[in-house]
Amino acid sequence: MNSLSDLLDSSLFPPLGETMYAMIRELYPICRSITGKGAEETLDRLQASLEIQIRRVPTGTPVFDWTVPKEWNIRDAYVRDSSGRKIIDFQKSNLHVVSYSQPVNKQVPLQELLQHVITLPSHPDWIPYRTSYYTENWGLCAAHNQVRDLPQGTYDVFIDATFSDGHLVYGEYCKPGDLDDEILISTHICHPSLCNDNLSGIALTAMLAKLVSKFPTRYTYRFLFIPGTIGSITWLSQNREHVHRVKHGLVATCVGDAGPFRYKRSRQGNAVIDRAVLHVLKHCSQNFHESEFSPYGYDERQYCSPGFNLAVGSLTRSSHGQYPQYHTSADDLELVAPINLAQSLEVYARVIHCLEANCTYVSLNPYCEPQLGRRGLYDAIGGNHAPDTFRMALLWVLNQSDGKHSLLDIAERAEIPFDVIADAASALAGAALLAPNPPSASG
Amino acid sequence: MNSLSDLLDSSLFPPLGETMYAMIRELYPICRSITGKGAEETLDRLQASLEIQIRRVPTGTPVFDWTVPKEWNIRDAYVRDSSGRKIIDFQKSNLHVVSYSQPVNKQVPLQELLQHVITLPSHPDWIPYRTSYYTENWGLCAAHNQVRDLPQGTYDVFIDATFSDGHLVYGEYCKPGDLDDEILISTHICHPSLCNDNLSGIALTAMLAKLVSKFPTRYTYRFLFIPGTIGSITWLSQNREHVHRVKHGLVATCVGDAGPFRYKRSRQGNAVIDRAVLHVLKHCSQNFHESEFSPYGYDERQYCSPGFNLAVGSLTRSSHGQYPQYHTSADDLELVAPINLAQSLEVYARVIHCLEANCTYVSLNPYCEPQLGRRGLYDAIGGNHAPDTFRMALLWVLNQSDGKHSLLDIAERAEIPFDVIADAASALAGAALLAPNPPSASG
Amino acid sequence: MNSLSDLLDSSLFPPLGETMYAMIRELYPICRSITGKGAEETLDRLQASLEIQIRRVPTGTPVFDWTVPKEWNIRDAYVRDSSGRKIIDFQKSNLHVVSYSQPVNKQVPLQELLQHVITLPSHPDWIPYRTSYYTENWGLCAAHNQVRDLPQGTYDVFIDATFSDGHLVYGEYCKPGDLDDEILISTHICHPSLCNDNLSGIALTAMLAKLVSKFPTRYTYRFLFIPGTIGSITWLSQNREHVHRVKHGLVATCVGDAGPFRYKRSRQGNAVIDRAVLHVLKHCSQNFHESEFSPYGYDERQYCSPGFNLAVGSLTRSSHGQYPQYHTSADDLELVAPINLAQSLEVYARVIHCLEANCTYVSLNPYCEPQLGRRGLYDAIGGNHAPDTFRMALLWVLNQSDGKHSLLDIAERAEIPFDVIADAASALAGAALLAPNPPSASG
Repeated sequence: MNSLSDLLDSSLFPPLGETMYAMIRELYPICRSITGKGAEETLDRLQASLEIQIRRVPTGTPVFDWTVPKEWNIRDAYVRDSSGRKIIDFQKSNLHVVSYSQPVNKQVPLQELLQHVITLPSHPDWIPYRTSYYTENWGLCAAHNQVRDLPQGTYDVFIDATFSDGHLVYGEYCKPGDLDDEILISTHICHPSLCNDNLSGIALTAMLAKLVSKFPTRYTYRFLFIPGTIGSITWLSQNREHVHRVKHGLVATCVGDAGPFRYKRSRQGNAVIDRAVLHVLKHCSQNFHESEFSPYGYDERQYCSPGFNLAVGSLTRSSHGQYPQYHTSADDLELVAPINLAQSLEVYARVIHCLEANCTYVSLNPYCEPQLGRRGLYDAIGGNHAPDTFRMALLWVLNQSDGKHSLLDIAERAEIPFDVIADAASALAGAALLAPNPPSASG
Repeated sequence: MNSLSDLLDSSLFPPLGETMYAMIRELYPICRSITGKGAEETLDRLQASLEIQIRRVPTGTPVFDWTVPKEWNIRDAYVRDSSGRKIIDFQKSNLHVVSYSQPVNKQVPLQELLQHVITLPSHPDWIPYRTSYYTENWGLCAAHNQVRDLPQGTYDVFIDATFSDGHLVYGEYCKPGDLDDEILISTHICHPSLCNDNLSGIALTAMLAKLVSKFPTRYTYRFLFIPGTIGSITWLSQNREHVHRVKHGLVATCVGDAGPFRYKRSRQGNAVIDRAVLHVLKHCSQNFHESEFSPYGYDERQYCSPGFNLAVGSLTRSSHGQYPQYHTSADDLELVAPINLAQSLEVYARVIHCLEANCTYVSLNPYCEPQLGRRGLYDAIGGNHAPDTFRMALLWVLNQSDGKHSLLDIAERAEIPFDVIADAASALAGAALLAPNPPSASG
Repeated sequence: MNSLSDLLDSSLFPPLGETMYAMIRELYPICRSITGKGAEETLDRLQASLEIQIRRVPTGTPVFDWTVPKEWNIRDAYVRDSSGRKIIDFQKSNLHVVSYSQPVNKQVPLQELLQHVITLPSHPDWIPYRTSYYTENWGLCAAHNQVRDLPQGTYDVFIDATFSDGHLVYGEYCKPGDLDDEILISTHICHPSLCNDNLSGIALTAMLAKLVSKFPTRYTYRFLFIPGTIGSITWLSQNREHVHRVKHGLVATCVGDAGPFRYKRSRQGNAVIDRAVLHVLKHCSQNFHESEFSPYGYDERQYCSPGFNLAVGSLTRSSHGQYPQYHTSADDLELVAPINLAQSLEVYARVIHCLEANCTYVSLNPYCEPQLGRRGLYDAIGGNHAPDTFRMALLWVLNQSDGKHSLLDIAERAEIPFDVIADAASALAGAALLAPNPPSASG
């Protein structure tokens, strides 16, 4: 992995899929929330392979309209029946406690207990995942089958949670490039033992950061590992002066299941990131969905708020509401697979390649076609491309390189994969038929 | 009816449908034409419930390329056979006389008679409606069955019509608003005993004027009751200096039958009125047709002539050429119904609401989302809207309120009904999260 | 043929189809290439009916990135078996020699011979057409059946070709108009005995030039009869200062077969020529194909190179790759027919009419409609058009003539054939209701 074009080597990704899956397996047991030791531990583990900067923002810090909340930590929780048997046990699944639940230690009758236990009758073996960040309450989640036949009686409820002045913790990895212009990849780290949402996003973001770190880049890259919503709000608040440097961005989440790719456009709607992702999906994916921007979803909501209006989209497989296991204990190690992670990483890598290589050229021979045969280009085969496609790519790049069309513009108009267009441009530049159009394009 | 939002109360309209139908029934027997006593009497009746200004423009007044014609009045007409039996009798239907027919009083053989009698062989029981405003001629209309078996012989023809220097009469009702900018609703009053075309338009326009008169409005409203073509030309000619104040307009006609709504765009093609009507139809109508502007039709032809190019569309049910009863005696009191009139009025009312409420806001919290929960808005339900839709409306309004998008822009992009968007904007403005974007938008 | 509108007379074209077919029959036997006597003789024959200027550009002249090649001439060629029998004989078909083949006169064994003989196994009776302009080689083409059963042995190969310093020859016919702005029609003359590609294009271009020469025109017309690629490059190189005068252009080729029309847009994509051709095809063709610009094809590749970016499209019937006979001996006198040539010429003529008549007017009566009846226009029938269509055309022209819409704009919006719109504009201008919008439009 020495250069940008190595990102196009498909054989690179299957082994990385295995590595990402191992990372998910390692992080799976940790109980994460928007603050607390789980997030810290997760970032510590990631640091083993990536020099992530860990940022700590104190409880009470104002971040735009919000305030960094108290730090919440959970040690144990259970419900015990009168015989002492644990009906619900946090040690068996950290989904059993509603995230940010108040602590409790009391005896309650069955009826009161059930008012605080959330189940999924439609999937009676699955434990749902729920949160109560901004409403004071106590609560537990359980498989419907765990509680539906409980006898009348009194139950011990114990939730050993603490709220304290502490910190919101997030990770940031920055890889400098030739330009101050940045590409942002953001992933949320606040979910407990759930794999697709979002250990898959964490693993992919970390792996993509490692890949990008290995070769010189035009853009500066910023990878954020943040708690959802409050994390992106905090980062934006603390980096308000520099946010405008972000020229393209993606929110990486739910990238490990077998569903087709889904791309949700940025608020700008047809930004370069939107076009790059859709071009890559069109040429390397059998089936994908695209959707317009909507202000509901993950952290793109904040990046795309009107004061910032960043060109940040969301590239996922099955995301919220699109798979039954979403936000349940069934979003587990069986739902995600190395091959899916590998495919997702490859798509992200191709998007990065496209953004990096998307320059604008000007033909040095704009009057009529140059004689390609004389230069050995007419029957040249670039890369591993089919000769006819490569020849058409040469003609298209020559025809469109008037200084106004980027290579992505050309790839879209020619309906030829971007990498073929980029290789054709390299061949033509090598033959002194093209020159980069100054000032050097930033996308 | 105290405020704009009362226009969204669906229960308001069914009783008004009955009132409009009664109005049609009252006006049905009057023989109207582009001038003459029929139009005067029609306006007199409307004045009973609405303070319409009656304008009189003398015969011979030049109005752009045209001249106000002589006033035509008709007292009686018939055709009598040799036995004295009235074959055709104006007293039975005022459609029997071609409008603007010359007077005649003579005996004619059958063959000559038939050259002046228009029938509809395809609908042998219906009397057609015909006019001859600008060609001197005499003529009668009859059911085909009335004349097809007439024996040879001589017939008395009597048309007691007069042409005189008089006036073209039209009605105008103006309701001032905060702005000089105007909304124009125009309806034609020149058709005799025909219900859908256009007693329905007259009744709807009068009723809409009464509704609008009851609450303060941003726009000034102008309702015109005019003879077709020559009436709009006359009004435009006499108000040439002020015509530019009309920012949005509709020609109201054929709104009483059971056909689906039809909207014909203004010449501008995508003016706010076009977008408002189509948005309303999309969200409150099962089925509707839209068509591009065409220079053929009703008075929108004049409002959309290139020197004015007003944003005036045409919102109808079945209009000319789209129902077999068009311009025949079968366009009668059975073709129109109170429920259809009520639906049509409701659509017009919702368009008015949309134009009135279509402001542009700027978010006072443009950097990341504000914390809606803290303000009690996150689970708030606005109006009678579904909670999920209202919450999405809140998010959309916040996200798009950058001072460049009107509420209609937002409703279109969000695919959420305008009234939900408007209520969300009100709730957010009430929570000091939005401010109107100065200068206050005029649509 | 005295005026532009005669181009719309359909009865004009069938006899011209016969004349074009006769021209093809006359030129068919000549062996053309990109240089040499065949091209000269072809132009000489065309001069019998059209005053074409013949241009000669010496071998070695630099033309942009290219150089005018040596002149190639071929006198005879054959392959003879050991018994003296001619297996392949140039005298029977000039396709038997690869164009620009090196001369050869030697005995070769069967195996070596077959390395230089190109056949089409899928069409064993057809002789393919091949060239080797820029690679030194010798070669022959034959029907697969001619050579597949040849016995082992030695064969005489004789190709009596010469390469010499000479000229590239092309023809140019210019017809001056009121404007310096030019319409360019370009056709290639470098193919030997092939009818659709491109004797059909030569015949149509010559006939169109004759038609256009007969009446005064607004535009200046330039008709080019050039060898493919090197010819357009040479012409562009030699006329670099004046190329900008070309406002609209077409490459005329493959216009004699029975296939549906095909239009390939110019690089500009929606230039007036693109819109004019597609409008004409839409209204006078049952079935046609349109395609976006692509930098592969005929001489439009050069006219549309980025330094020129001329508005030149390509209007054909079946073109390269779209008919099996393409570049084979089966592209013969049976593939093309007078009726097809006539249809093609008529479409080209209608495009010319559209470009010539495509003026912009301003209504002299922009406020409301003028009273057409008073001027005898309301029931007027223009040309041979249906009265309803003509009346709508009058209304559309009046409505849209605000100085911003050309007649082609109006025809497109109204979905009425251009010639009806143009006749309506003439009638309205005749009634002093329209005036040309100065400065007089150039399209």
